[in-house]
Amino acid sequence: MESLEGWLASRGQGHDPLAEQHRWALLPPGKLLRPVLLMESAAAVGGSIEQVRPVATGFELMHAGSLIHDDIIDGDEVRRGREATHCRYGVDRAVVGADALFFAVFATLGECRRRGVPDRLIADATAVIAEAGLRITRGATLELDLSGTLHDDTDAYLEVARLKTAALLRAACRTGAVLAGATAEQTAALTEFGEALGIAFQIRDDLLPYGRERRPGTRTETAAAGKPRTSDLRNGRPVLPLLLAHRYGDDAERALLAELLGAGQERSGERSGERATVRAYASQEAGADEESRQERLHQLLERTGALKAAQHTADTHLDRCREALEALPPSSHRQRLAALAARCHSRRQAGDEGAGR
Amino acid sequence: MESLEGWLASRGQGHDPLAEQHRWALLPPGKLLRPVLLMESAAAVGGSIEQVRPVATGFELMHAGSLIHDDIIDGDEVRRGREATHCRYGVDRAVVGADALFFAVFATLGECRRRGVPDRLIADATAVIAEAGLRITRGATLELDLSGTLHDDTDAYLEVARLKTAALLRAACRTGAVLAGATAEQTAALTEFGEALGIAFQIRDDLLPYGRERRPGTRTETAAAGKPRTSDLRNGRPVLPLLLAHRYGDDAERALLAELLGAGQERSGERSGERATVRAYASQEAGADEESRQERLHQLLERTGALKAAQHTADTHLDRCREALEALPPSSHRQRLAALAARCHSRRQAGDEGAGR
Repeated sequence: MESLEGWLASRGQGHDPLAEQHRWALLPPGKLLRPVLLMESAAAVGGSIEQVRPVATGFELMHAGSLIHDDIIDGDEVRRGREATHCRYGVDRAVVGADALFFAVFATLGECRRRGVPDRLIADATAVIAEAGLRITRGATLELDLSGTLHDDTDAYLEVARLKTAALLRAACRTGAVLAGATAEQTAALTEFGEALGIAFQIRDDLLPYGRERRPGTRTETAAAGKPRTSDLRNGRPVLPLLLAHRYGDDAERALLAELLGAGQERSGERSGERATVRAYASQEAGADEESRQERLHQLLERTGALKAAQHTADTHLDRCREALEALPPSSHRQRLAALAARCHSRRQAGDEGAGR
Repeated sequence: MESLEGWLASRGQGHDPLAEQHRWALLPPGKLLRPVLLMESAAAVGGSIEQVRPVATGFELMHAGSLIHDDIIDGDEVRRGREATHCRYGVDRAVVGADALFFAVFATLGECRRRGVPDRLIADATAVIAEAGLRITRGATLELDLSGTLHDDTDAYLEVARLKTAALLRAACRTGAVLAGATAEQTAALTEFGEALGIAFQIRDDLLPYGRERRPGTRTETAAAGKPRTSDLRNGRPVLPLLLAHRYGDDAERALLAELLGAGQERSGERSGERATVRAYASQEAGADEESRQERLHQLLERTGALKAAQHTADTHLDRCREALEALPPSSHRQRLAALAARCHSRRQAGDEGAGR
């Protein structure tokens, strides 16, 4: 099993009623950030890329599963520029389809084993992946708890980013290290690298709708998720720039912020206490209205210094990344890990890359 | 980690926003059929119950997770005699809450390892559990594909039962065998036992609403799931007795069957193509009406010989169970496994036990 294509093909024993859905969710592939992190981490400590490749693919499966459930929860209808899985196959099938991808990542460890990874390391990796899954679900729940409230609590935001987004990047790096038989020090360094990178990426993703290259009045999508860039406005997710604007703004600015967000959520339609009703929301007029609100929001974030402060927080985590890598021996693989982090550094490049939430 | 209580308590590092939901879904415990199967299987081949106890608990977590997603998909609002998890905590939280339980089962393997199970066997068990998860999701999807159509295809029904219900019982027995270091022959026998038992239990569960001890006109619940016994009628699931009535019935009987089921599904309310709307359905009048339809359905199943034929199919699988156990050395544990299967044998005892779907 060499790749996503390979994984999809390898499931051919008998009819698999989920095959088509999984193909939809997985192909064409995204940036494969987690597989790349896992393989480069293994190689950076002297491990074999070929031996860990199956579980590297497995991390993309787990990531895809988690996006499917996220989109159900957020009521997001677009993913990577096309219909979200639950819109195409129905919520029922998407719920179980994602479950299958969670089990699949553990199944891929069997192939690493057949390629010669010792049982001890397979058992270690099983624990790492299970722990990551538990963190992600805690993060997603915490996010639901915080959703829809504007507060000053950036610690809570960072905790969600650490648990929900960073957990899988952290686990990808850690699994690569573990399966390659890295020392405890190297494993800790790669774990730290992955977690800090994940937090930085999450902040960067949340800054994407406010990137400098965006042209006012253009209805664009963020490159990261292929989602409408007004998504935050609509789903009430208290992302870092909004929290910082709330913290730094004066009374009038806070009031404006609440108004812009309130109107956004009202627009988003019948989000009941029970669940987000999946609903098309695309009339031309509403779109223009939303764009204008998004524009005013952008100006407010700029004026309060929230955008700058959020970027600064991301940079702090990127510094952690750089420091962590110093524990590894110099190599082209360490360089590639450093380059992945560096790409996150400059806002000018926002839009090229993303954690793919 | 000794038990469900122990597992819930062991998660105390920091606030876990899912703890309350998991407590709701897991306690008070059900019959713990899967943990019992796993531990008795291990002991029947000479293994240590203490070493496998953590993952035995893990199987109950996985089972609970799968019930949570099932109830969301089926729109069932009652489980074990009380509010289903998604009704109490909302669909969004229930989706991720169940995901956490899927990851948790793999995490419990770490505790078996600390209790001395060799890494090789931990890696084997990881593969068994991952495979079971994949089967369950395939079975659930196949069931969705078949849902709402009355056909003669009992093979498809049995395939759903094998994949969706039997996979976890099969995996519980197989995991017990594997972790105890059983021979290949013993492992195969326990795997066969678990699968056949699972299929028999599913048929028995589907027969429960038509058990002899039921009194006409009484609004009862099946003991297995604490669900209203008219649930099949409402969710359009083509269970074995209905398929057999369709096969054996004459034209008039088939027409009556379709009418009774059609009315049932109509009643069940707005089940859109996209997803079942969670909706209270409990008015006194509708209930009485439904009970009378259920009664006519029962008579039809009796008249066409469908109930007898379904019980016969279950018995065939229980024979497989008995034969499989012959490959194991005689012991009190083998006896207890045989007793679990025997309890399924007689319709008079329907209501005492169930696969807990």
